[in-house]
Amino acid sequence: MKRWLPVLLSLLSLGTILCLAQTDQVTIKEDFQPSSLNQPGQDYPQVNSQGYARFRIVAPQAQSVTVNLGGPGGTPLKKSGDGVWIGTTAVPLDEGFHYYHLSVDGGTFNDPGALNFYGSIRWESGIEIPAHDREFYALKDVPHGRVQQILFPSKSTGICRRAFVYTPPDYEKNLTRRYPVLYLQHGWGEDETAWSNQGHANLIMDNLIAEGKISPFLIVMTYGMTNEVKFGTIGTYDVTPFETVLVNELIPYIDANFRTLADQPHRAMAGLSMGGVQTKAITLKHLDKFSHIGLFSGGTISPEDVSKTLDFAKKVKLVFVSYGSRELGGKMAGAFGGDPKANAEALRRAGINSAFYVSPNTAHEFLSWRRSLREMALLLFKE
Amino acid sequence: MKRWLPVLLSLLSLGTILCLAQTDQVTIKEDFQPSSLNQPGQDYPQVNSQGYARFRIVAPQAQSVTVNLGGPGGTPLKKSGDGVWIGTTAVPLDEGFHYYHLSVDGGTFNDPGALNFYGSIRWESGIEIPAHDREFYALKDVPHGRVQQILFPSKSTGICRRAFVYTPPDYEKNLTRRYPVLYLQHGWGEDETAWSNQGHANLIMDNLIAEGKISPFLIVMTYGMTNEVKFGTIGTYDVTPFETVLVNELIPYIDANFRTLADQPHRAMAGLSMGGVQTKAITLKHLDKFSHIGLFSGGTISPEDVSKTLDFAKKVKLVFVSYGSRELGGKMAGAFGGDPKANAEALRRAGINSAFYVSPNTAHEFLSWRRSLREMALLLFKE
Repeated sequence: MKRWLPVLLSLLSLGTILCLAQTDQVTIKEDFQPSSLNQPGQDYPQVNSQGYARFRIVAPQAQSVTVNLGGPGGTPLKKSGDGVWIGTTAVPLDEGFHYYHLSVDGGTFNDPGALNFYGSIRWESGIEIPAHDREFYALKDVPHGRVQQILFPSKSTGICRRAFVYTPPDYEKNLTRRYPVLYLQHGWGEDETAWSNQGHANLIMDNLIAEGKISPFLIVMTYGMTNEVKFGTIGTYDVTPFETVLVNELIPYIDANFRTLADQPHRAMAGLSMGGVQTKAITLKHLDKFSHIGLFSGGTISPEDVSKTLDFAKKVKLVFVSYGSRELGGKMAGAFGGDPKANAEALRRAGINSAFYVSPNTAHEFLSWRRSLREMALLLFKE
Repeated sequence: MKRWLPVLLSLLSLGTILCLAQTDQVTIKEDFQPSSLNQPGQDYPQVNSQGYARFRIVAPQAQSVTVNLGGPGGTPLKKSGDGVWIGTTAVPLDEGFHYYHLSVDGGTFNDPGALNFYGSIRWESGIEIPAHDREFYALKDVPHGRVQQILFPSKSTGICRRAFVYTPPDYEKNLTRRYPVLYLQHGWGEDETAWSNQGHANLIMDNLIAEGKISPFLIVMTYGMTNEVKFGTIGTYDVTPFETVLVNELIPYIDANFRTLADQPHRAMAGLSMGGVQTKAITLKHLDKFSHIGLFSGGTISPEDVSKTLDFAKKVKLVFVSYGSRELGGKMAGAFGGDPKANAEALRRAGINSAFYVSPNTAHEFLSWRRSLREMALLLFKE
């Protein structure tokens, strides 16, 4: 695993949300609208049809206000006469969700206009650039499942822990039906709220089910940073405490308290970024428990991994690996135990049901993972 | 209703979270600990055993940083040599939960150390002063119910709306049992997250059920500001749009999708502050739907109200009215259609099951309402 660690770390720290630098002068269209993730009644931040974001912060006596979207330098705002700071990103942002925060006179604060989302081990501001394919995670007039907050006992950590469980619309209608389960993990610095809040996992499922494209299953989302994971140690940290919570405590609790199909063929695990690293580590050790494996921007499974894992081909019904297109190439070549696309093809040639998906024009960010969840959901529990 | 409106408004705008001014010099004990509502890993804000709060904000180039806890003036922080602003409240805070925000160089921001809670129509910072009776809403090693996010269709508003439903621990164990329902509303500027996040309604219920003190029931919490309610118009605004959502849309949805006892004797409504005003307005119009009524810091029900409402004594099984002790007296005398304690006694003399509760040493704030929920739960659905 150490082989691709430096690559993973550089990948995670790229701050890759800005598009490639544009050399030509572009006319910024003045069709800005409030971001869909603004707090109620807030006009700013705004987004235009080209993907530029405009910020407006009231701080009359401040000396400097900068918006930090993860890229280098940030977007400095300029003070107008009335003490209001305004500025527009130098380049368009990728479609989808982006974390950001403000630097006000050297302090780190959130934008009072935006909703907050947990990432980077803090509640950050969020902004949404409307994606051309946003319909698949839109709130529509279809039957909706629930997102159920549960508190489950964890002897290994000595506390009650929280998880969220997506149950599909018909879960409450058909009280004898049992369902497969996907355990779905967030990335480094995020928590169990991420897949619902940033990821719209419930809406993705509601829409796929309403369209008749998938058979319903449950999704379980819990906190994966059971022990401290310092940024930069994801590839080498001890996953055992989280593995214990997930395998020994959460899975039995879910199977005892929800109407699950409580066997290996009907249990999947997937995760984004650090959650993908955890998924690989845990599923390969517990192929008696998991049959479907998904890694979203979080590594790959190579023929070498398969050969080192007893009964892999017999037990694993799906290997799903995905990335954002902006993450691939360059440093990614040869990373994560080889080219993920080539790995997927090699696994398929070896008779393993293996899929590789690339999210167009996105980086290490949530639109890649919303799309990855949708694509994986279409393939889950088909056997 | 207009008669007590000025009183309600002055009550709401008192900013009554600070204790009475102290004239003697008090020694502040240096036993500060991080607030239980801090973001993960954050050391500040802190609280000491006397109820003083200490704040620490990094903003090296700022000109001024003030903490606004709702009282006049706020707590100005002082900059130390390293660009860190520190300050302690001039007086202890009441036990329980308090909203606050920062003023940094004239701009309004949240404390990056604290979790956020929706109040005053924005996500505010929150701080918790440990209450002497905090055990009743503590997270304990008992069976836990769930908080289920639902999205329900609302023709009258043209969108899917969100609600949270507390289901007790045995709801999933006994699939034939049906339960009474309490519809529980937040205050002005809050939303459907308030009763779980700030109020710990689910933990209050889990603990009461584990102690065998109540029979389990469901709690439904949704957003009450369906139409715009300007601060200062709570007593006169048009409650009809919310009444339509609640009575015509949400209640039928809950009864169709949860195992409720779907009749008047097993349906209650309560609310805090504006939610109490709404509760009174809606229940008195729909006594065919509600049998138990709770107003927390949000008015009272007088003998005059009873006499104006057809079949009140026959249909209403409980009138529960509560306040924080710091809200009573002074301007409150004669407010809300008379003294609420005298009203409760008059109703009892008239044969109506009426309870009046005063939360000790709290004001118009969430500890008053956590306690009110507990006290009312003990009395609900007894007949």
